[in-house]
Amino acid sequence: MLRAEFEQRRRVLASQLAPLKADALLVTFPGNVRYLTGYTGSNGVLLLFASGDAHFFTDPRYRIQAAAEVSCLVKVSTGPLLRDVLALIARKRVRWVGFEKSRLGFEHYEFLKSKLPVRCALQPLAGLVETQRMIKSAMEIALIRRSVDVNSKAFEQSLRMIRPGRTREADLAAEIDHRMRKLGAERPAFETIVASGDRTALPHAQPTRKILSKNELLLIDMGATLEGYASDMTRVLILGRPSSRIKRIYRAVLEAQLAAIAVVRPGVTAAYVDRAARNVLKVEKLDNAFVHSTGHGLGLEIHEPPRLGKKEKTRLQEGMAITIEPGVYLRGFGGVRIEDTVVVSKTGCEILTPTSKELRQV
Amino acid sequence: MLRAEFEQRRRVLASQLAPLKADALLVTFPGNVRYLTGYTGSNGVLLLFASGDAHFFTDPRYRIQAAAEVSCLVKVSTGPLLRDVLALIARKRVRWVGFEKSRLGFEHYEFLKSKLPVRCALQPLAGLVETQRMIKSAMEIALIRRSVDVNSKAFEQSLRMIRPGRTREADLAAEIDHRMRKLGAERPAFETIVASGDRTALPHAQPTRKILSKNELLLIDMGATLEGYASDMTRVLILGRPSSRIKRIYRAVLEAQLAAIAVVRPGVTAAYVDRAARNVLKVEKLDNAFVHSTGHGLGLEIHEPPRLGKKEKTRLQEGMAITIEPGVYLRGFGGVRIEDTVVVSKTGCEILTPTSKELRQV
Repeated sequence: MLRAEFEQRRRVLASQLAPLKADALLVTFPGNVRYLTGYTGSNGVLLLFASGDAHFFTDPRYRIQAAAEVSCLVKVSTGPLLRDVLALIARKRVRWVGFEKSRLGFEHYEFLKSKLPVRCALQPLAGLVETQRMIKSAMEIALIRRSVDVNSKAFEQSLRMIRPGRTREADLAAEIDHRMRKLGAERPAFETIVASGDRTALPHAQPTRKILSKNELLLIDMGATLEGYASDMTRVLILGRPSSRIKRIYRAVLEAQLAAIAVVRPGVTAAYVDRAARNVLKVEKLDNAFVHSTGHGLGLEIHEPPRLGKKEKTRLQEGMAITIEPGVYLRGFGGVRIEDTVVVSKTGCEILTPTSKELRQV
Repeated sequence: MLRAEFEQRRRVLASQLAPLKADALLVTFPGNVRYLTGYTGSNGVLLLFASGDAHFFTDPRYRIQAAAEVSCLVKVSTGPLLRDVLALIARKRVRWVGFEKSRLGFEHYEFLKSKLPVRCALQPLAGLVETQRMIKSAMEIALIRRSVDVNSKAFEQSLRMIRPGRTREADLAAEIDHRMRKLGAERPAFETIVASGDRTALPHAQPTRKILSKNELLLIDMGATLEGYASDMTRVLILGRPSSRIKRIYRAVLEAQLAAIAVVRPGVTAAYVDRAARNVLKVEKLDNAFVHSTGHGLGLEIHEPPRLGKKEKTRLQEGMAITIEPGVYLRGFGGVRIEDTVVVSKTGCEILTPTSKELRQV
């Protein structure tokens, strides 16, 4: 069944090549190679023909692994993989070979260009596999759901270690990452953010040796990678009792987040969802403090298309997995961000993240 | 002092540009940017002029961080960083701008090429910063030493959790990673390898749910990243009592490792060190089972030049930090690899790794 899904993905992609003037597509980005073959190692490329034929190349270190994971033809190269790719291109008399222009490095591009058969040309292509990856299959949604569940469980377990006045940001981040692993994740999907006090105002805070203190805000942004698939969640807690200002800001961000979720459905643009969140914050005069976009797709990468930004015209479709994460950042005071992972359904969306969004006191 | 070191690094690099027909060098690879500026964020590029002037570009998320970390001019761009880089190139009337050809993606290359002032040309350059980074400063060696110490401490602490018949490979790997973090590392330098039984014969084994069993080999390959700097160590243990075959193989690999370390000194080629290890294994007829090179440089990346391979003519120099890690892999039986991190000294080398290399029984 799994095998059939990878074959189906390659078939869909192959059918797009001819209209783009490509007899074959060289797939080099690991996430895309994994999506099309199931290969999880670090060195492998795929040459997919418009006919649907697919050839996978790796090195001897991955001979056993590739045989177990990859359902198409596998070539184990003893030299550079691209040399064997070129040999196949020559043998198959390919005239146009597409490559992933946002993924291939200049040096590899130059190597290919200089060694291609004279009658063959390179065709830079953008975002083909990424566009296909936007819509998740049932199997992918099941994996994202498991990743989300592990992430939320690790969050709950880790909160128990918090001792204001003793626990450091970095200790809590380490605990979170460890819990994820114990629950079955391969690794965190990104560097876990644990920020406290006015450091919550930094959208990209790295955990420091700062000690969590009484009555401070605590922002945790965390995600797991499980069987390759990412989850992403942000929660803000208060280490004691919230001031009325904190309560007001928290309420505004939560309402913005709920408003954005409420409009998610197939056919609306990404910008429309972003605007729904921004409009709520505008009423509270907090829209200027919302300095990033409302969300992003996720799957085999933690950040994938679509981006839910101000100007994004991409229309949501059933099966997209996205985050909804408005935030407000006030320098010298602090920040609040609330983030769930959701999947676009036929008529709206399903919120995968099970963790409560009430302002929690610990 | 730190600031002075970054300035010194940029000065050395700038002095190499004119002979390469480059008025400026665009540095885009994060490790190289960090080496030259101290910047630890995820989005930043450096434009270094042959005159020694340096301009750093980042986005608003990193405004505060860049101000704290970067000692040269900082430009916070609200659009794509490369657009502002191009504007500066135009303003300074640069005629040749070098770029890191093994690091820059094709799409960025194309963007630069299409937007450059007409009188300006791109100059692909390879390995300039990487070559400079091969020789570590006293400050860098101190950081690598700390990284090695944390790594070895985490190893010792983690061994205590091993219960043959109960502990899984993945549990031990998670414990190791957690210990590193608790001891001050930012993260593992690579995915920690814990392999047991005949899985030790896979040089790139990923930890699985396999339970560690009595009388099996256990291979642990681990490294920490601490303040950006990597360490790397492999040890093989026996979960009970070693057979005479295991003892013989272990002894051969250890002798090969010691032989390689014994010849490390300034002036010898990387291939010479590799051969020293290989020759010992040849006597035991195990050289065919040694399927990788003897070691690699490490620093801000876990794999850096020089590679200590069969054909590598690079001569070792004082201040290089390298691994020495011969291994023997017998399909269906198991593998043994022994790896230390060492620094080339004036007359030989210093072994940084403090962990014992006797075959340990747990």
